Amino acid sequence: MGKYSIGLDFGTLSARAIVVDVENGKEMATSVVGYQDAVFDKVLPGTRITIPEEFALQNPQDYIDALESLLSDVWKKAKIKAEDIIGIGVASTSSSVICLDDKYHPLCFNERYKNNPHSWIKLWKHHGAQEEADMINDMVNVVNGKLFEFYGGKTNSENFFAKILETARKAPEIYDATYRFMEIADWIVYLLTGNDVRNSCMAGFKAFWNKDNKCILHTVFSKLSPRFDNVLSKISDDVGMIGGKAGGLTKEMSQKISIPEGVAVSLGNADGHLAVPAVGVTKPNTMVLIMGTSISHMILSDKAEGIPGICGVVEDGIIPGFFAYEAGQSAGGDIYDWFVSKIAPYEFMQQAIEKNVTIFKVLDAKAGQIQAGTSGVLALDWWNGNRSTLGDSRLSGVLLGLNINTKPEEIYKALIESTAFGTRLIVEVFENYGVQVKSIVACGGLSQKSSVVIQTFSDILNKPIKVSAVSQTTALGAAMYGAVAAGAANNGYDSIIQAAQRMSKLEEEEYRPNSRNVEIYNKLYKNYKSLYNLLGKNFNSIMWDLKTIYNKH
Amino acid sequence: MGKYSIGLDFGTLSARAIVVDVENGKEMATSVVGYQDAVFDKVLPGTRITIPEEFALQNPQDYIDALESLLSDVWKKAKIKAEDIIGIGVASTSSSVICLDDKYHPLCFNERYKNNPHSWIKLWKHHGAQEEADMINDMVNVVNGKLFEFYGGKTNSENFFAKILETARKAPEIYDATYRFMEIADWIVYLLTGNDVRNSCMAGFKAFWNKDNKCILHTVFSKLSPRFDNVLSKISDDVGMIGGKAGGLTKEMSQKISIPEGVAVSLGNADGHLAVPAVGVTKPNTMVLIMGTSISHMILSDKAEGIPGICGVVEDGIIPGFFAYEAGQSAGGDIYDWFVSKIAPYEFMQQAIEKNVTIFKVLDAKAGQIQAGTSGVLALDWWNGNRSTLGDSRLSGVLLGLNINTKPEEIYKALIESTAFGTRLIVEVFENYGVQVKSIVACGGLSQKSSVVIQTFSDILNKPIKVSAVSQTTALGAAMYGAVAAGAANNGYDSIIQAAQRMSKLEEEEYRPNSRNVEIYNKLYKNYKSLYNLLGKNFNSIMWDLKTIYNKH
Repeated sequence: MGKYSIGLDFGTLSARAIVVDVENGKEMATSVVGYQDAVFDKVLPGTRITIPEEFALQNPQDYIDALESLLSDVWKKAKIKAEDIIGIGVASTSSSVICLDDKYHPLCFNERYKNNPHSWIKLWKHHGAQEEADMINDMVNVVNGKLFEFYGGKTNSENFFAKILETARKAPEIYDATYRFMEIADWIVYLLTGNDVRNSCMAGFKAFWNKDNKCILHTVFSKLSPRFDNVLSKISDDVGMIGGKAGGLTKEMSQKISIPEGVAVSLGNADGHLAVPAVGVTKPNTMVLIMGTSISHMILSDKAEGIPGICGVVEDGIIPGFFAYEAGQSAGGDIYDWFVSKIAPYEFMQQAIEKNVTIFKVLDAKAGQIQAGTSGVLALDWWNGNRSTLGDSRLSGVLLGLNINTKPEEIYKALIESTAFGTRLIVEVFENYGVQVKSIVACGGLSQKSSVVIQTFSDILNKPIKVSAVSQTTALGAAMYGAVAAGAANNGYDSIIQAAQRMSKLEEEEYRPNSRNVEIYNKLYKNYKSLYNLLGKNFNSIMWDLKTIYNKH
Repeated sequence: MGKYSIGLDFGTLSARAIVVDVENGKEMATSVVGYQDAVFDKVLPGTRITIPEEFALQNPQDYIDALESLLSDVWKKAKIKAEDIIGIGVASTSSSVICLDDKYHPLCFNERYKNNPHSWIKLWKHHGAQEEADMINDMVNVVNGKLFEFYGGKTNSENFFAKILETARKAPEIYDATYRFMEIADWIVYLLTGNDVRNSCMAGFKAFWNKDNKCILHTVFSKLSPRFDNVLSKISDDVGMIGGKAGGLTKEMSQKISIPEGVAVSLGNADGHLAVPAVGVTKPNTMVLIMGTSISHMILSDKAEGIPGICGVVEDGIIPGFFAYEAGQSAGGDIYDWFVSKIAPYEFMQQAIEKNVTIFKVLDAKAGQIQAGTSGVLALDWWNGNRSTLGDSRLSGVLLGLNINTKPEEIYKALIESTAFGTRLIVEVFENYGVQVKSIVACGGLSQKSSVVIQTFSDILNKPIKVSAVSQTTALGAAMYGAVAAGAANNGYDSIIQAAQRMSKLEEEEYRPNSRNVEIYNKLYKNYKSLYNLLGKNFNSIMWDLKTIYNKH
């Protein structure tokens, strides 16, 4: 007689749905659908219309198709009855922005607008709005520098408003024809419920919303461009607090997917942030590390502090009742993957082939045998620039301490160490501002892929680390919020805290710091910091110049 | 009716002899013999007697065997008559020191001494005498800092006297029993001629000799250790000017090798320095780059300047009548070899196997297609520390500007560029002190292995480069000096300048700087220099610490 919740996770290249048992979080079934047009950055689909540099666009039809196909299919796969589904939770990347007309139809579905790249979805990693981000930062400095106190001091080109300002400036006809700019997750929620309601997480982290001032930038917009004066009228002013119910499944959608009308649908959720309840963290002092190609750092606190260099702090941003902090490293697994795929030493590839394992496994095993501090190699983890704490995309990766006896696995180990040192620096900044980090829970692909990585993080951070036992933390988190949207009265939960207690799962084993390594890494960390300050702050022009020498020529 | 000279080159692991036509330098035959005991650094040959760390020892018997076997064999291989051999030239590594009793027998041949590691040959790369080098530097600073004005400001552990002082301190019984400490080349000359005469090149570069003061340290020795007071009595005070004749072949040796008694034998020569006449350079303003695992920079001048950070300047050190300057980079081909052998990306290795070429060839071809300045990668060439201009063995290699799109061949190209930038820095120091470098001649294995390397050097140095057409420059140089020892009266030459004009050979083609690349590299060089100053001078403790963190722990 179980009750079930469905978690939807719209990622960058595919969408995923899982059905979980509300009682204990057990995964009953999972379905994945890839987006047909994926991400386009060269030409618009089916045309020869070229797309400007730095763009990353998507087709709304792919999301609609995925939504309907997943919801029709996944619960049947789980062999449950549709009547036992009590809630649906929705998560997506952010800030991924869609523009809609007054009937909530995507503008890119309209013959009149479809040839304009700005009418399509601007994916989170669309970087066409750097100029607009700079404009916003400059204007905030002029108007009131303190406005970004809780956003680490500045915004970047992935921001919601930077992307919209780009449309207003570069494609005014699209901007003018847009009735609603929405985050993808909020739009999906609209498709399911017919309600146009934003979620406090994305509104806070990506669109400068807070409970008191609504959008803290409201005095700035008109100064950026006369046309931009009306931007807030193009965004719903209904913002629901995370964990709330957005509405019930519409009749129309109910018929398409064969799930009963009225089933509770949660507000939208940002994929990364969902990991926090999904690994059972609902209180301060435990940092959640989301370790994938990049690394995100989430932590809850009772108070808001303006911490320079972090991504932001948002009230009710992740768990209602707490201030949620986010920081991030632009590259984590990306760096290891670079080494594994681009460098891929012959010897290790051969061993991988012989043993029929991945080269990653071979390198991991070798790296695990290297004593801390013995290789003399030190790296700076800036392969994708630095997000927190320097916020500088012009920075680049460094390897130092190389000699003719340096082995590939020693470089690999140094890369792992560098990402852990980068996290330690972020932890240190948090703690300097009174946000204490007592323990850590890790999730994401990397956390399950390599025990060497997690042990190295534990040694370098000198903190215990627990690892999620669930591979799909985002989808699980979405399902939790689906159960919360249903509420206890409907066999769900009345709060995400209760849901997390019952539905989350961690591995039994905890990684604990090795005291001998801790001591050595404390010394190495000083060197990392010296190099960080040298090349990231005082002499950052060396790296900046390298990026432009050829182009300037 | 040709006349021939034999060049002998005693290298680190093998000895080589070539027979060349004195008229035109044409190589008639070559023979190579490996040393049976090679270099020993763990136990003494045939024993379990352990050798201290940092030692690098050799067996004199290997040299004797090689000498006799090469000279018996090589001229027969050339199908010439022994009567047509007019001279023999000798070159060896330096400073490689042998200790002999008063009958000129190696002490390690004596039962009484053979179990003491200090009784064997201390090879140039024996680094056991660091403490003694420090003592010498400290004492010179106390007595008169200007003494090392012409030696870049300090000496190192490879120096002749540092090695002998080590013996005096660590093995006084060997020191006391030694009648003669000799450079290997001088000892080989003794074996051939029975004459105990040193050469002005090694005496100058490695043993602080100059025409006026004999040994500039004579006032310092007694202060280093009471026992060391008599060190100069253990070294021949007969120093012959490079290019001179050491003597004629003894009857005894003549019988062993079937070359007529009395054939002229040159003074000993240092292997690297011989490259200068061997590539035809006998005048100022042309720098000779000897490009092998490391890179040496030799240049002649009319005047002596105290240039900080170079290896030294010695009157008559290479070509009689000129001051010879030497500088060096501790790693050149070593760095590329590290990348090729240790990193060896799988993809390139596969291509190499498919095309049946070396991976070096594959990488070289790829690197040749990379436009200057496009990769954004910058390296510091300190894989073996820095010899000139910082003289700091604790420094280490750096790669900067890495990102997740960085390709292996871009790293490889950056490694090549880094060695060229390192040479440019040395050239700049020379020119700042009035020693102008107008053109360059390159020789050594690397110069013949890769046109990409030479073109990159030309672009970065903004100077034309010619390349030696001879693969065995050291042996050819030795043969030239053999012809000079014979003299014009015996169908040889009266000066090395004449010999070089006739016997040296360069490739026709000259590498010329590409003006577009020159401009880009001028900018990149500024970045290289900033990084060089940052990590090599102002913040060198970062690298120093990395070498000791584990050991100190």
